[in-house]
Amino acid sequence: MAKPSIPKGTRDFSPIEMAKRNYIFNTIREVFHLFGFEQIETPSMENLSTLMGKYGDEGDKLLFKILDSGDYLGDLDVKTLLRETIKKAQEEGLIVEQNAKSYDIKVPIEDFDIKLKSTIKKLIDSGVGREKGLRYDLTVPFARYVVMHRDELSFPFKRYQIQPVWRADRPQKGRYREFYQCDADVVGSNSLLNEVELMQLVDAVFNRLGIRVSIKINNRKILSGIAEIIGEADKIVDITVAIDKLDKIGLENVNVELASKGISDEAIAKLQPIILLSGTNTEKLQTLKTVLASSEVGMKGVEESEYILTHLSLLNIQSEMELDLTLARGLNYYTGAIFEVKALDVPMGSITGGGRYDNLTGVFGMAGVSGVGISFGADRIFDVLNQLELYPKEAVNGTQLLFVNFGENEAAYCLPLLTKAREANIRAELYPDAAKMKKQMGYANDKQIPFVAIAGENEIKESKVMLKNMESGDQQLMDIAQLIATVAQ
Amino acid sequence: MAKPSIPKGTRDFSPIEMAKRNYIFNTIREVFHLFGFEQIETPSMENLSTLMGKYGDEGDKLLFKILDSGDYLGDLDVKTLLRETIKKAQEEGLIVEQNAKSYDIKVPIEDFDIKLKSTIKKLIDSGVGREKGLRYDLTVPFARYVVMHRDELSFPFKRYQIQPVWRADRPQKGRYREFYQCDADVVGSNSLLNEVELMQLVDAVFNRLGIRVSIKINNRKILSGIAEIIGEADKIVDITVAIDKLDKIGLENVNVELASKGISDEAIAKLQPIILLSGTNTEKLQTLKTVLASSEVGMKGVEESEYILTHLSLLNIQSEMELDLTLARGLNYYTGAIFEVKALDVPMGSITGGGRYDNLTGVFGMAGVSGVGISFGADRIFDVLNQLELYPKEAVNGTQLLFVNFGENEAAYCLPLLTKAREANIRAELYPDAAKMKKQMGYANDKQIPFVAIAGENEIKESKVMLKNMESGDQQLMDIAQLIATVAQ
Repeated sequence: MAKPSIPKGTRDFSPIEMAKRNYIFNTIREVFHLFGFEQIETPSMENLSTLMGKYGDEGDKLLFKILDSGDYLGDLDVKTLLRETIKKAQEEGLIVEQNAKSYDIKVPIEDFDIKLKSTIKKLIDSGVGREKGLRYDLTVPFARYVVMHRDELSFPFKRYQIQPVWRADRPQKGRYREFYQCDADVVGSNSLLNEVELMQLVDAVFNRLGIRVSIKINNRKILSGIAEIIGEADKIVDITVAIDKLDKIGLENVNVELASKGISDEAIAKLQPIILLSGTNTEKLQTLKTVLASSEVGMKGVEESEYILTHLSLLNIQSEMELDLTLARGLNYYTGAIFEVKALDVPMGSITGGGRYDNLTGVFGMAGVSGVGISFGADRIFDVLNQLELYPKEAVNGTQLLFVNFGENEAAYCLPLLTKAREANIRAELYPDAAKMKKQMGYANDKQIPFVAIAGENEIKESKVMLKNMESGDQQLMDIAQLIATVAQ
Repeated sequence: MAKPSIPKGTRDFSPIEMAKRNYIFNTIREVFHLFGFEQIETPSMENLSTLMGKYGDEGDKLLFKILDSGDYLGDLDVKTLLRETIKKAQEEGLIVEQNAKSYDIKVPIEDFDIKLKSTIKKLIDSGVGREKGLRYDLTVPFARYVVMHRDELSFPFKRYQIQPVWRADRPQKGRYREFYQCDADVVGSNSLLNEVELMQLVDAVFNRLGIRVSIKINNRKILSGIAEIIGEADKIVDITVAIDKLDKIGLENVNVELASKGISDEAIAKLQPIILLSGTNTEKLQTLKTVLASSEVGMKGVEESEYILTHLSLLNIQSEMELDLTLARGLNYYTGAIFEVKALDVPMGSITGGGRYDNLTGVFGMAGVSGVGISFGADRIFDVLNQLELYPKEAVNGTQLLFVNFGENEAAYCLPLLTKAREANIRAELYPDAAKMKKQMGYANDKQIPFVAIAGENEIKESKVMLKNMESGDQQLMDIAQLIATVAQ
């Protein structure tokens, strides 16, 4: 029998991994609740009509499609399939004769092969045999949710969602076909206080996790303003990429790169103060106010960023806040503020990101719903905590106490004590079999159980147990009350 | 634009539903931890080779299959497809001539249609184009997990798993295509103490949830013993079904029904004490010891049941324990104890069930792993708690405090207070827009927020806020410390 395996790009999570992941999700979840966000869940499967066309052509290809159950070929129009194949064959000069009741097909085998295959593929791509796909992200299902439940919701609607998503991407290190997303969004409010609060929330989450971070913010409107004043609206990404290289390649080479992208000398000249933008956030905003003075949208972006940064500076947050014009994530999507969070003590990509978007639900026929959201990258946060060894001991909430099993009578003596320990909220087990002591102690070691309770003939006579501290090796005879007090410490 | 919808048999969960579900899962999870169970998660998708053939023919049909991404027809052997079609056509007397490089096919259109369709279906069924399926239950993936990770695991392995499963079943009331399972199993130990502990665990869960239950237990070996003594091994299900009707239709009719199922008069005579089995569990066991005296396997089942019931009677559990011979769930699967839990105060099917099975992992090439497990029916428990209105107020952990927003200055005054409230672990929000008072109060009502903090010009002057208790309508001017103390109560 072949050794069983799991599909490429998917993972099993062991107890220790689960404990760590739960620690991350519970921490984030608690902060979400403190900030008034409520949880929803949506189905893993959505209708393909909900998903298709929402992620671009590339995204459509990365959707996992689900075959309908039962007679999923019931709707497959084989006559069309055959007719199409024959038509194509005829177009290409292959010999096909059609009588009243039959086709006479004379087709080179190889060629028929190709035609038939491409026609079947076309039909299946068009949706024959499957109408459902697995969730690709949490945003489109959320938009669908808001539209479907609009009459039950009270706006602004602050929801969070922690669920897996699936992408038929080529698996590689750090890229999975199934992974969790962890999103919070406020929809139905244009207030910038939402942006302020989300940054506070990010700060609170990473404080609790003990990860020092830098929160970078930018604004789509500032980028639009820059494009406007230099007259190169379509070059925004080229510009941010080039600016990002300043430290590495120097001003001269940045300008060379900009020119190589077809940006005019005049535009490059106008860009100089932006490329060299530095100093505190206040200083940067001051420079931008001068440079973008003639751009209404640009000035709006500066004003929004100033509002957010000023409010945050009064709120005593721990994280570094940095206005960073090279931040250009989700440009096709975000319409206002853009955020990204980087860990300061581990070299790693963004561990959290988000921004303001307009018209979340327009694609489902509900106009005018603006929103702002944030998405925590659980897998990367997991890695950061691992690398910095920041998991608190309590995060790994395994068994605290093991009762050794010496046989029927001893086990019967232990069972009520075990119950009492659990009633005192101690996570406790009795080894189920009267196995050798070595095996039972090995089990305690493997599960990293800190205390082992031993009750043989002598202990039973005294109505006590011997409690062994597995770390220090100390043993002490005690009654159940003392045991509970010791283990619970 | 069409109104968006979700696939049949799937559900969105609203914030209130999520809060209730989380309450159930968290309660169960806490008890799992108290009993030393550790969580794992497995991928939503498994290889079809892992899933197929594990649930019977019917189960195979109910698997949701996932199309491979990208060029999923790359492996579709169209030549085989064509050849098969032609072969079938020839078998049925249709005219096909094959030359060196081409087929001459003369096929009635209708017929070709049918042949081609059935051949394509056969090929797709055989796995062309998709090698993965969605998890159908948590047991087979768990068995696969144990085999794949055997070298990392310490046995007995006590794992729990709370994840959705998918079945391409016809959706109907109470039957979903996506639903959560919540399983705990101990594998690698034959000790009956595991059964005892699982019953204690079930009792602890339902005590915490406040649901009064009856735990019914049976044993596959008792049923085998009954079959053995009456010489009708294949009639076990007929017998349990008939016995179950005693209260409704009376002894005479039960005997008539048994006879109609082809059970001999002699066998029916031997069954009388079993049909009429009544009294306490001890009395029932006593009767069974007499009736099954000549059956080794039957006596083993009685002994096991006695062990479990005796130990539980010493452990002071709250739930009713009942030996119930009509309990015949999972007969093809369970080899020892069988459990089922019914709510006493709501008419509803079993809300939890489980049993002892042998050879969990044999199908994946790892023999000799016995286990015992329990599965909580989350959807039904949800309904029971709803019907009995047993959700504690704290279960719905929504926002506790809303700051009203009167405009920029007032909001700026509230922000640091909001932060302080959250630092004191109060779930709090500031309404993000300076909307009309009525709208903001409506929001507080909709979200069932119990306290609203109001800070206008006067309150700000005094460095205080007006706190309104939304239930009583009382208002009181106070500082932030008082506010925190009041809301946190």
